[in-house]
Amino acid sequence: MNEQALKTALAAQLSFWPRLTEQEQQFLCAHTALVHYARGQILHDGGAACTGVLLVQKGQLRTYILSDEGREITLYRLGAGEICILSASCVLDAITFDVVIAAEADTEVLLLNQAAFKKLTEENIYARCFGYELSTTRFSEVMWTLQQILFWGVDQRLALFLWQEKQKLQQDTLQLTQEQIARDIGSAREVVSRMLKYFAREGIVKLSRGGIQILDNKKLQALLPKS
Amino acid sequence: MNEQALKTALAAQLSFWPRLTEQEQQFLCAHTALVHYARGQILHDGGAACTGVLLVQKGQLRTYILSDEGREITLYRLGAGEICILSASCVLDAITFDVVIAAEADTEVLLLNQAAFKKLTEENIYARCFGYELSTTRFSEVMWTLQQILFWGVDQRLALFLWQEKQKLQQDTLQLTQEQIARDIGSAREVVSRMLKYFAREGIVKLSRGGIQILDNKKLQALLPKS
Repeated sequence: MNEQALKTALAAQLSFWPRLTEQEQQFLCAHTALVHYARGQILHDGGAACTGVLLVQKGQLRTYILSDEGREITLYRLGAGEICILSASCVLDAITFDVVIAAEADTEVLLLNQAAFKKLTEENIYARCFGYELSTTRFSEVMWTLQQILFWGVDQRLALFLWQEKQKLQQDTLQLTQEQIARDIGSAREVVSRMLKYFAREGIVKLSRGGIQILDNKKLQALLPKS
Repeated sequence: MNEQALKTALAAQLSFWPRLTEQEQQFLCAHTALVHYARGQILHDGGAACTGVLLVQKGQLRTYILSDEGREITLYRLGAGEICILSASCVLDAITFDVVIAAEADTEVLLLNQAAFKKLTEENIYARCFGYELSTTRFSEVMWTLQQILFWGVDQRLALFLWQEKQKLQQDTLQLTQEQIARDIGSAREVVSRMLKYFAREGIVKLSRGGIQILDNKKLQALLPKS
Protein backbone atom coordinates (compact mmCIF):
# COMPACT_ATOMS: atom_id res chain seq x y z
CA MET A 1 0.00 0.00 0.00
CA ASN A 2 1.57 3.33 -1.04
CA GLU A 3 1.44 6.37 1.22
CA GLN A 4 -1.41 8.05 -0.60
CA ALA A 5 -3.58 4.93 -0.45
CA LEU A 6 -2.77 4.56 3.24
CA LYS A 7 -3.73 8.18 3.96
CA THR A 8 -7.00 7.74 2.11
CA ALA A 9 -7.79 4.57 4.08
CA LEU A 10 -6.99 6.17 7.43
CA ALA A 11 -8.96 9.30 6.60
CA ALA A 12 -11.98 7.17 5.69
CA GLN A 13 -12.03 5.20 8.95
CA LEU A 14 -10.75 7.65 11.55
CA SER A 15 -13.22 10.45 12.22
CA PHE A 16 -10.54 12.45 14.03
CA TRP A 17 -8.23 12.47 10.97
CA PRO A 18 -9.08 16.08 9.92
CA ARG A 19 -8.28 17.18 13.49
CA LEU A 20 -4.68 16.00 13.22
CA THR A 21 -1.86 18.30 12.18
CA GLU A 22 -0.02 17.32 9.00
CA GLN A 23 2.85 16.20 11.19
CA GLU A 24 0.56 13.97 13.27
CA GLN A 25 -0.92 12.48 10.09
CA GLN A 26 2.59 11.65 8.85
CA PHE A 27 3.44 10.17 12.25
CA LEU A 28 0.37 7.94 12.21
CA CYS A 29 1.08 6.76 8.65
CA ALA A 30 4.64 5.92 9.61
CA HIS A 31 3.38 3.71 12.43
CA THR A 32 0.63 1.91 10.58
CA ALA A 33 1.19 -1.44 8.90
CA LEU A 34 -0.94 -3.64 6.69
CA VAL A 35 -1.12 -7.01 8.44
CA HIS A 36 -2.64 -10.32 7.35
CA TYR A 37 -4.05 -12.87 9.76
CA ALA A 38 -4.89 -16.39 8.66
CA ARG A 39 -8.29 -17.88 9.41
CA GLY A 40 -8.29 -19.24 12.96
CA GLN A 41 -5.33 -17.19 14.12
CA ILE A 42 -5.56 -15.65 17.59
CA LEU A 43 -4.21 -12.16 17.27
CA HIS A 44 -4.85 -10.79 20.73
CA ASP A 45 -4.97 -12.77 23.93
CA GLY A 46 -6.07 -10.51 26.81
CA GLY A 47 -3.96 -9.83 29.86
CA ALA A 48 -0.62 -8.33 29.04
CA ALA A 49 -1.31 -8.30 25.31
CA CYS A 50 -1.21 -4.94 23.63
CA THR A 51 -1.73 -5.22 19.95
CA GLY A 52 -2.80 -1.77 18.84
CA VAL A 53 -5.83 -0.40 17.05
CA LEU A 54 -7.11 -2.64 14.26
CA LEU A 55 -8.84 -1.16 11.22
CA VAL A 56 -10.43 -4.10 9.45
CA GLN A 57 -10.02 -3.95 5.65
CA LYS A 58 -11.19 -7.45 4.68
CA GLY A 59 -12.32 -10.57 6.51
CA GLN A 60 -13.75 -10.86 10.01
CA LEU A 61 -12.56 -10.66 13.60
CA ARG A 62 -14.33 -12.28 16.54
CA THR A 63 -13.96 -10.82 20.03
CA TYR A 64 -14.77 -13.11 22.93
CA ILE A 65 -14.19 -13.82 26.59
CA LEU A 66 -12.86 -17.11 27.82
CA SER A 67 -13.27 -18.74 31.22
CA ASP A 68 -10.69 -20.86 33.04
CA GLU A 69 -12.67 -23.91 32.00
CA GLY A 70 -12.51 -22.92 28.36
CA ARG A 71 -16.06 -21.66 28.05
CA GLU A 72 -16.39 -18.90 25.46
CA ILE A 73 -18.86 -16.10 24.98
CA THR A 74 -18.74 -14.13 21.76
CA LEU A 75 -19.01 -10.42 22.45
CA TYR A 76 -19.09 -9.13 18.88
CA ARG A 77 -17.71 -9.54 15.39
CA LEU A 78 -16.08 -6.86 13.27
CA GLY A 79 -15.96 -6.77 9.48
CA ALA A 80 -14.52 -4.50 6.79
CA GLY A 81 -14.73 -0.84 7.72
CA GLU A 82 -14.99 -1.51 11.45
CA ILE A 83 -12.43 -0.76 14.13
CA CYS A 84 -11.25 -2.85 17.05
CA ILE A 85 -10.29 -0.74 20.05
CA LEU A 86 -10.23 -3.33 22.86
CA SER A 87 -7.04 -4.68 21.29
CA ALA A 88 -5.47 -1.38 22.36
CA SER A 89 -6.67 -1.50 25.95
CA CYS A 90 -3.18 -0.73 27.24
CA VAL A 91 -3.37 2.64 25.51
CA LEU A 92 -6.57 3.79 27.18
CA ASP A 93 -6.17 3.52 30.94
CA ALA A 94 -9.89 3.35 31.58
CA ILE A 95 -10.17 -0.01 29.78
CA THR A 96 -9.35 -2.68 32.32
CA PHE A 97 -11.22 -5.53 30.72
CA ASP A 98 -9.54 -8.33 28.80
CA VAL A 99 -10.77 -10.07 25.68
CA VAL A 100 -9.48 -12.54 23.14
CA ILE A 101 -9.59 -11.66 19.44
CA ALA A 102 -9.37 -14.19 16.65
CA ALA A 103 -9.58 -14.07 12.86
CA GLU A 104 -12.66 -15.96 11.68
CA ALA A 105 -11.69 -15.61 8.05
CA ASP A 106 -8.48 -14.62 6.30
CA THR A 107 -8.31 -11.05 7.48
CA GLU A 108 -6.46 -7.94 6.48
CA VAL A 109 -6.12 -5.05 8.91
CA LEU A 110 -4.38 -1.75 9.17
CA LEU A 111 -2.60 -2.01 12.48
CA LEU A 112 -1.95 1.27 14.30
CA ASN A 113 1.05 0.66 16.50
CA GLN A 114 0.04 0.87 20.17
CA ALA A 115 2.89 3.13 21.31
CA ALA A 116 2.24 5.54 18.46
CA PHE A 117 -1.49 5.58 19.13
CA LYS A 118 -0.79 6.16 22.83
CA LYS A 119 1.40 9.16 22.03
CA LEU A 120 -1.32 10.52 19.78
CA THR A 121 -4.06 10.16 22.41
CA GLU A 122 -1.86 11.98 24.90
CA GLU A 123 -1.23 14.86 22.53
CA ASN A 124 -4.48 15.13 20.63
CA ILE A 125 -7.75 15.28 22.54
CA TYR A 126 -9.77 14.31 19.42
CA ALA A 127 -7.85 11.07 19.01
CA ARG A 128 -8.31 10.38 22.72
CA CYS A 129 -12.03 11.09 22.61
CA PHE A 130 -12.41 8.90 19.53
CA GLY A 131 -10.90 5.97 21.45
CA TYR A 132 -13.16 6.38 24.44
CA GLU A 133 -16.30 6.96 22.40
CA LEU A 134 -15.65 3.79 20.44
CA SER A 135 -15.00 1.86 23.66
CA THR A 136 -18.27 3.08 25.12
CA THR A 137 -20.14 1.96 22.00
CA ARG A 138 -18.64 -1.54 22.16
CA PHE A 139 -19.23 -1.88 25.88
CA SER A 140 -22.86 -0.83 25.50
CA GLU A 141 -23.45 -3.54 22.89
CA VAL A 142 -21.67 -6.13 24.98
CA MET A 143 -23.58 -5.24 28.12
CA TRP A 144 -26.83 -5.89 26.29
CA THR A 145 -25.71 -9.34 25.18
CA LEU A 146 -24.35 -10.31 28.58
CA GLN A 147 -27.47 -9.08 30.32
CA GLN A 148 -29.70 -11.24 28.15
CA ILE A 149 -27.55 -14.31 28.66
CA LEU A 150 -26.79 -13.83 32.31
CA PHE A 151 -29.85 -12.31 33.69
CA TRP A 152 -32.78 -13.48 31.78
CA GLY A 153 -31.27 -16.67 30.45
CA VAL A 154 -32.77 -15.71 27.09
CA ASP A 155 -30.17 -17.79 25.28
CA GLN A 156 -31.03 -20.87 27.33
CA ARG A 157 -34.75 -20.31 27.08
CA LEU A 158 -34.56 -19.84 23.33
CA ALA A 159 -32.31 -22.88 22.92
CA LEU A 160 -34.62 -25.02 25.04
CA PHE A 161 -37.66 -23.90 23.10
CA LEU A 162 -36.06 -24.62 19.71
CA TRP A 163 -34.81 -27.99 20.95
CA GLN A 164 -38.24 -29.01 22.23
CA GLU A 165 -39.94 -27.91 19.01
CA LYS A 166 -37.41 -29.90 16.98
CA GLN A 167 -38.03 -33.02 19.11
CA LYS A 168 -41.78 -32.57 18.91
CA LEU A 169 -41.94 -32.07 15.14
CA GLN A 170 -39.01 -34.33 14.26
CA GLN A 171 -37.66 -31.79 11.78
CA ASP A 172 -34.83 -29.30 11.58
CA THR A 173 -36.74 -26.44 10.04
CA LEU A 174 -39.31 -24.81 12.26
CA GLN A 175 -42.05 -22.56 10.92
CA LEU A 176 -42.25 -20.08 13.76
CA THR A 177 -42.65 -16.34 13.95
CA GLN A 178 -40.65 -14.26 16.39
CA GLU A 179 -43.92 -13.23 18.08
CA GLN A 180 -44.79 -16.89 18.75
CA ILE A 181 -41.38 -17.58 20.25
CA ALA A 182 -41.42 -14.41 22.37
CA ARG A 183 -44.86 -15.33 23.75
CA ASP A 184 -43.72 -18.84 24.49
CA ILE A 185 -40.51 -18.03 26.30
CA GLY A 186 -41.92 -14.95 28.00
CA SER A 187 -39.75 -12.36 26.35
CA ALA A 188 -40.15 -9.43 23.98
CA ARG A 189 -40.15 -9.85 20.19
CA GLU A 190 -37.20 -7.44 19.83
CA VAL A 191 -35.18 -9.49 22.30
CA VAL A 192 -35.97 -12.75 20.47
CA SER A 193 -35.10 -11.13 17.15
CA ARG A 194 -31.73 -9.95 18.41
CA MET A 195 -30.93 -13.27 20.11
CA LEU A 196 -31.87 -15.24 16.98
CA LYS A 197 -29.44 -13.09 15.01
CA TYR A 198 -26.81 -13.84 17.65
CA PHE A 199 -27.54 -17.58 17.21
CA ALA A 200 -27.27 -17.18 13.44
CA ARG A 201 -23.90 -15.45 13.70
CA GLU A 202 -22.76 -18.31 15.93
CA GLY A 203 -23.76 -20.77 13.20
CA ILE A 204 -26.39 -22.46 15.37
CA VAL A 205 -29.35 -21.62 13.17
CA LYS A 206 -30.06 -20.21 9.74
CA LEU A 207 -32.85 -17.67 9.47
CA SER A 208 -35.12 -17.43 6.47
CA ARG A 209 -38.55 -16.10 5.63
CA GLY A 210 -40.88 -17.39 8.34
CA GLY A 211 -38.56 -20.22 9.27
CA ILE A 212 -35.65 -21.18 11.48
CA GLN A 213 -33.36 -23.97 10.40
CA ILE A 214 -31.27 -25.66 13.07
CA LEU A 215 -27.76 -26.12 11.68
CA ASP A 216 -25.70 -27.24 14.63
CA ASN A 217 -27.32 -29.61 17.12
CA LYS A 218 -24.25 -29.83 19.31
CA LYS A 219 -23.98 -26.09 19.81
CA LEU A 220 -27.70 -25.89 20.49
CA GLN A 221 -27.55 -28.69 23.05
CA ALA A 222 -24.58 -27.05 24.75
CA LEU A 223 -26.83 -24.09 25.50
CA LEU A 224 -29.59 -26.13 27.16
CA PRO A 225 -30.03 -25.47 30.88
CA LYS A 226 -28.37 -28.11 33.07
CA SER A 227 -31.03 -29.42 35.40
CA MET B 1 -24.56 26.77 48.24
CA ASN B 2 -23.26 30.14 47.02
CA GLU B 3 -21.69 30.57 43.59
CA GLN B 4 -18.11 30.49 44.81
CA ALA B 5 -18.65 27.28 46.77
CA LEU B 6 -20.37 25.73 43.75
CA LYS B 7 -17.47 26.68 41.46
CA THR B 8 -14.99 25.19 43.92
CA ALA B 9 -16.98 21.95 44.12
CA LEU B 10 -17.29 21.64 40.33
CA ALA B 11 -13.61 22.43 39.80
CA ALA B 12 -12.66 19.74 42.30
CA GLN B 13 -14.70 16.96 40.66
CA LEU B 14 -14.61 17.83 36.95
CA SER B 15 -11.15 17.34 35.45
CA PHE B 16 -12.17 19.30 32.34
CA TRP B 17 -13.08 22.41 34.37
CA PRO B 18 -9.84 24.31 33.54
CA ARG B 19 -10.53 23.61 29.84
CA LEU B 20 -13.81 25.52 29.93
CA THR B 21 -14.04 29.18 28.99
CA GLU B 22 -15.25 31.50 31.74
CA GLN B 23 -18.54 31.70 29.90
CA GLU B 24 -18.87 27.90 29.83
CA GLN B 25 -18.07 27.72 33.55
CA GLN B 26 -20.82 30.27 34.27
CA PHE B 27 -23.20 28.31 32.06
CA LEU B 28 -22.48 25.06 33.90
CA CYS B 29 -22.93 26.71 37.32
CA ALA B 30 -26.24 28.17 36.22
CA HIS B 31 -27.47 24.67 35.30
CA THR B 32 -26.28 22.80 38.36
CA ALA B 33 -28.48 22.24 41.39
CA LEU B 34 -27.88 20.76 44.82
CA VAL B 35 -30.38 17.92 45.18
CA HIS B 36 -31.23 15.69 48.13
CA TYR B 37 -32.47 12.13 47.79
CA ALA B 38 -33.92 10.24 50.72
CA ARG B 39 -32.65 6.78 51.59
CA GLY B 40 -34.39 4.20 49.38
CA GLN B 41 -35.43 6.70 46.72
CA ILE B 42 -35.09 5.63 43.09
CA LEU B 43 -33.67 8.57 41.24
CA HIS B 44 -33.12 7.11 37.79
CA ASP B 45 -35.13 4.35 36.20
CA GLY B 46 -33.53 3.34 32.88
CA GLY B 47 -35.29 3.53 29.53
CA ALA B 48 -36.49 7.00 28.70
CA ALA B 49 -35.11 8.47 31.92
CA CYS B 50 -32.56 11.21 31.52
CA THR B 51 -31.53 12.60 34.82
CA GLY B 52 -28.22 14.31 34.16
CA VAL B 53 -24.72 13.94 35.57
CA LEU B 54 -24.64 13.29 39.33
CA LEU B 55 -21.70 14.49 41.43
CA VAL B 56 -22.09 12.74 44.76
CA GLN B 57 -21.36 15.04 47.74
CA LYS B 58 -22.61 12.87 50.62
CA GLY B 59 -24.28 9.49 51.01
CA GLN B 60 -24.27 6.59 48.57
CA LEU B 61 -25.85 5.66 45.24
CA ARG B 62 -26.36 2.10 44.04
CA THR B 63 -26.49 1.35 40.29
CA TYR B 64 -28.13 -1.90 39.29
CA ILE B 65 -29.92 -3.76 36.54
CA LEU B 66 -33.35 -5.22 37.04
CA SER B 67 -35.04 -8.11 35.27
CA ASP B 68 -38.74 -8.43 34.47
CA GLU B 69 -39.06 -10.82 37.39
CA GLY B 70 -37.56 -8.28 39.77
CA ARG B 71 -34.15 -9.89 40.02
CA GLU B 72 -31.41 -7.35 40.65
CA ILE B 73 -27.69 -7.27 40.05
CA THR B 74 -25.68 -4.50 41.66
CA LEU B 75 -23.21 -3.07 39.16
CA TYR B 76 -21.45 -0.60 41.45
CA ARG B 77 -21.86 1.87 44.29
CA LEU B 78 -20.77 5.50 44.25
CA GLY B 79 -19.89 7.58 47.32
CA ALA B 80 -18.79 11.15 48.04
CA GLY B 81 -16.44 12.53 45.40
CA GLU B 82 -17.59 10.08 42.71
CA ILE B 83 -19.56 10.82 39.58
CA CYS B 84 -22.47 9.00 38.00
CA ILE B 85 -22.48 9.24 34.21
CA LEU B 86 -24.88 6.44 33.22
CA SER B 87 -27.68 8.66 34.55
CA ALA B 88 -26.88 10.93 31.60
CA SER B 89 -26.93 8.22 28.96
CA CYS B 90 -29.22 10.30 26.75
CA VAL B 91 -26.45 12.87 26.44
CA LEU B 92 -23.80 10.49 25.15
CA ASP B 93 -25.13 8.69 22.09
CA ALA B 94 -22.74 5.78 22.43
CA ILE B 95 -24.35 4.69 25.71
CA THR B 96 -27.30 2.49 24.87
CA PHE B 97 -27.48 0.53 28.08
CA ASP B 98 -30.07 1.14 30.81
CA VAL B 99 -29.61 0.99 34.55
CA VAL B 100 -31.56 1.85 37.69
CA ILE B 101 -30.02 4.14 40.31
CA ALA B 102 -31.20 4.33 43.91
CA ALA B 103 -30.05 6.18 47.02
CA GLU B 104 -28.81 3.69 49.63
CA ALA B 105 -28.41 6.41 52.24
CA ASP B 106 -29.63 9.99 52.51
CA THR B 107 -27.69 11.41 49.61
CA GLU B 108 -26.72 14.86 48.40
CA VAL B 109 -25.66 15.38 44.80
CA LEU B 110 -24.77 18.20 42.49
CA LEU B 111 -27.00 17.56 39.52
CA LEU B 112 -25.73 18.84 36.17
CA ASN B 113 -28.78 19.38 34.02
CA GLN B 114 -28.79 16.94 31.08
CA ALA B 115 -29.61 19.48 28.35
CA ALA B 116 -26.88 21.82 29.59
CA PHE B 117 -24.35 19.00 29.79
CA LYS B 118 -25.34 17.90 26.29
CA LYS B 119 -24.72 21.39 24.92
CA LEU B 120 -21.35 21.46 26.64
CA THR B 121 -20.26 18.08 25.24
CA GLU B 122 -21.21 19.27 21.76
CA GLU B 123 -19.19 22.45 22.09
CA ASN B 124 -16.25 21.40 24.21
CA ILE B 125 -14.25 18.31 23.25
CA TYR B 126 -12.75 18.05 26.75
CA ALA B 127 -16.17 17.78 28.38
CA ARG B 128 -17.14 15.21 25.76
CA CYS B 129 -14.00 13.17 26.28
CA PHE B 130 -14.49 13.32 30.05
CA GLY B 131 -17.96 11.77 29.67
CA TYR B 132 -16.76 8.94 27.46
CA GLU B 133 -13.67 8.21 29.52
CA LEU B 134 -15.79 7.95 32.65
CA SER B 135 -18.29 5.68 30.83
CA THR B 136 -15.47 3.43 29.71
CA THR B 137 -14.19 3.17 33.27
CA ARG B 138 -17.62 2.20 34.60
CA PHE B 139 -18.26 -0.28 31.81
CA SER B 140 -14.88 -1.91 32.40
CA GLU B 141 -15.73 -2.39 36.07
CA VAL B 142 -19.17 -3.70 35.25
CA MET B 143 -17.88 -6.10 32.63
CA TRP B 144 -15.56 -7.52 35.22
CA THR B 145 -18.45 -8.04 37.62
CA LEU B 146 -20.69 -9.63 35.01
CA GLN B 147 -17.92 -11.91 33.89
CA GLN B 148 -17.47 -13.13 37.46
CA ILE B 149 -21.12 -13.95 37.67
CA LEU B 150 -21.23 -15.60 34.26
CA PHE B 151 -18.17 -17.71 34.67
CA TRP B 152 -17.92 -18.44 38.37
CA GLY B 153 -20.01 -20.85 40.39
CA VAL B 154 -22.24 -19.53 43.14
CA ASP B 155 -19.98 -21.06 45.78
CA GLN B 156 -17.08 -18.99 44.59
CA ARG B 157 -19.14 -15.83 44.41
CA LEU B 158 -20.52 -16.35 47.88
CA ALA B 159 -17.09 -17.14 49.30
CA LEU B 160 -15.61 -14.03 47.70
CA PHE B 161 -18.40 -11.87 49.06
CA LEU B 162 -18.07 -13.20 52.62
CA TRP B 163 -14.30 -12.84 52.46
CA GLN B 164 -14.48 -9.25 51.28
CA GLU B 165 -17.05 -8.33 53.94
CA LYS B 166 -14.88 -9.89 56.63
CA GLN B 167 -11.84 -7.93 55.40
CA LYS B 168 -13.81 -4.71 55.22
CA LEU B 169 -15.40 -4.97 58.65
CA GLN B 170 -12.48 -6.74 60.33
CA GLN B 171 -14.82 -9.12 62.12
CA ASP B 172 -15.88 -12.75 61.82
CA THR B 173 -19.59 -12.28 62.38
CA LEU B 174 -21.45 -10.54 59.59
CA GLN B 175 -24.94 -9.12 60.03
CA LEU B 176 -26.32 -9.86 56.59
CA THR B 177 -29.64 -11.15 55.34
CA GLN B 178 -29.84 -13.69 52.54
CA GLU B 179 -31.67 -11.10 50.44
CA GLN B 180 -28.77 -8.68 50.79
CA ILE B 181 -26.25 -11.32 49.80
CA ALA B 182 -28.33 -12.52 46.87
CA ARG B 183 -28.69 -9.01 45.53
CA ASP B 184 -25.01 -8.34 45.87
CA ILE B 185 -23.74 -11.48 44.20
CA GLY B 186 -26.44 -11.52 41.54
CA SER B 187 -28.20 -14.68 42.57
CA ALA B 188 -31.57 -15.75 43.97
CA ARG B 189 -32.29 -15.86 47.72
CA GLU B 190 -33.07 -19.57 47.55
CA VAL B 191 -29.73 -20.29 45.92
CA VAL B 192 -27.88 -18.28 48.56
CA SER B 193 -29.85 -20.00 51.31
CA ARG B 194 -28.94 -23.42 49.97
CA MET B 195 -25.31 -22.56 49.50
CA LEU B 196 -25.06 -21.05 53.00
CA LYS B 197 -26.46 -24.28 54.45
CA TYR B 198 -23.88 -26.18 52.42
CA PHE B 199 -21.17 -23.91 53.81
CA ALA B 200 -22.53 -24.52 57.33
CA ARG B 201 -22.48 -28.28 56.84
CA GLU B 202 -18.89 -27.99 55.65
CA GLY B 203 -18.03 -26.14 58.85
CA ILE B 204 -17.09 -22.99 56.96
CA VAL B 205 -19.74 -20.80 58.60
CA LYS B 206 -22.24 -20.95 61.43
CA LEU B 207 -25.68 -19.54 60.74
CA SER B 208 -27.75 -17.75 63.34
CA ARG B 209 -30.63 -15.29 63.43
CA GLY B 210 -29.63 -12.48 61.05
CA GLY B 211 -25.95 -13.32 61.22
CA ILE B 212 -23.25 -15.41 59.58
CA GLN B 213 -20.18 -16.34 61.57
CA ILE B 214 -17.08 -17.36 59.63
CA LEU B 215 -15.56 -20.40 61.37
CA ASP B 216 -12.93 -21.66 58.97
CA ASN B 217 -10.85 -19.11 57.08
CA LYS B 218 -8.77 -21.70 55.27
CA LYS B 219 -11.76 -23.48 53.78
CA LEU B 220 -13.28 -20.17 52.80
CA GLN B 221 -10.08 -19.03 51.13
CA ALA B 222 -9.80 -22.34 49.30
CA LEU B 223 -13.06 -21.44 47.55
CA LEU B 224 -11.90 -18.06 46.32
CA PRO B 225 -11.52 -17.78 42.56
CA LYS B 226 -7.95 -18.09 41.35
CA SER B 227 -7.06 -14.94 39.48
